[in-house]
Amino acid sequence: MKACLFDVFGTVVDWRTSVSRELADFARQKGLAGIDWLELAVEWRKLYQPSLEEVRSGRRAWTILDVLHRESLDALVRRYGIRGLSEAELDHLNRAWHRLDPWPDVVAGLTRLKKKLVIAPCSNGNIALMVNLAKRAGLPWDCILGAETARAYKPLPEAYLAACRHLGLRPEEVMMVAAHNGDLKAAKAQGLATAFVPRPTEHGPGQRTDLAADPSCVDVAARDFVDLAARLGC
Amino acid sequence: MKACLFDVFGTVVDWRTSVSRELADFARQKGLAGIDWLELAVEWRKLYQPSLEEVRSGRRAWTILDVLHRESLDALVRRYGIRGLSEAELDHLNRAWHRLDPWPDVVAGLTRLKKKLVIAPCSNGNIALMVNLAKRAGLPWDCILGAETARAYKPLPEAYLAACRHLGLRPEEVMMVAAHNGDLKAAKAQGLATAFVPRPTEHGPGQRTDLAADPSCVDVAARDFVDLAARLGC
Repeated sequence: MKACLFDVFGTVVDWRTSVSRELADFARQKGLAGIDWLELAVEWRKLYQPSLEEVRSGRRAWTILDVLHRESLDALVRRYGIRGLSEAELDHLNRAWHRLDPWPDVVAGLTRLKKKLVIAPCSNGNIALMVNLAKRAGLPWDCILGAETARAYKPLPEAYLAACRHLGLRPEEVMMVAAHNGDLKAAKAQGLATAFVPRPTEHGPGQRTDLAADPSCVDVAARDFVDLAARLGC
Repeated sequence: MKACLFDVFGTVVDWRTSVSRELADFARQKGLAGIDWLELAVEWRKLYQPSLEEVRSGRRAWTILDVLHRESLDALVRRYGIRGLSEAELDHLNRAWHRLDPWPDVVAGLTRLKKKLVIAPCSNGNIALMVNLAKRAGLPWDCILGAETARAYKPLPEAYLAACRHLGLRPEEVMMVAAHNGDLKAAKAQGLATAFVPRPTEHGPGQRTDLAADPSCVDVAARDFVDLAARLGC
């Protein structure tokens, strides 16, 4: 094993708490009342997969996630009847996705893993989003890989294969790490090793999916990133 | 200014001393005698621009630098009459370009610059080369940009413009840093700010080019990376 690739939204960062906090902070400053910001964050995320699918399917030309997020935000602002936001304010809200907090084990685990392995995100987020997020959260990536460098959204095979190719490695030399069995199933199908890390509150207290590793596609089931480092001898 | 992009070969690392040391170390272990390894390193570098030009001109499809370096190495091995090298040995020699030492001011300067700015290479080296080089030398890049992410070799405009676009920044928010006035002239033409750092022994003791900044295309002339950090308020 020479490199670990990481899913980011949900696996590395707690998008749900972070985005709703960003929205609520903005609303407080702006004096907007009467909106459930946690619900709006979840609704925003619900528009994520359909927007990616337009690009994956080829119905839409290659488009980065910052642009897709912005279109979804504009739709939600209309749906919730939020008025009077400037372009700068909408851009600030859209960049809530650049200001996500990592789960508590992440920085310590990545720092250990980095000593022996190349570590990089393999996220559907674009490069600028990943760079800004990493800089704010102190994520010590060796490089930024993912949808924008592959020009393909996960779980398309090219998203995983391009990341391996860009590192000059064979898929079996690379481990995909995620809190989502579907991501790991797709990586495994391309020959990558896989590690599952549970994030049982990613979707809130009532989460029912991805509570445990699917043994059919997971090589290593770790408790968290620090446990993963220990299991990989780092 | 929100980001600094760096030329790497010559500006960040001393390729000439490092490649010749790698070749000489290998020759000693292998018992090869009678070859001037410093000359071979320089000859290898001489084949660099012509090989890039095949791709830049469109006569050849996109090809990463590791492949171009290997073709040049194979030609030199034939020219120098070096026999009996295995595929693994040739690959090891080709990766001499992944094991280059930084100039003494680089790590300290980058570490300071990184506190306030996004820092990334904008090199003609491919991603794997840049990742391996950075990991060995301790270069604290925020991400790896350059020819492979742009699919264009400097000094083509797209090499600079893609790096800015991938960071979500306008060219005037980005500074290109290089020891080569030609690189800075090309970056300036695309609207980037520029900084020159002299590396007067990159080409050996008799170097006559790029000994000083060309004021027609250089915004900041710094002594080294630490001085650059100070001038940028980092």
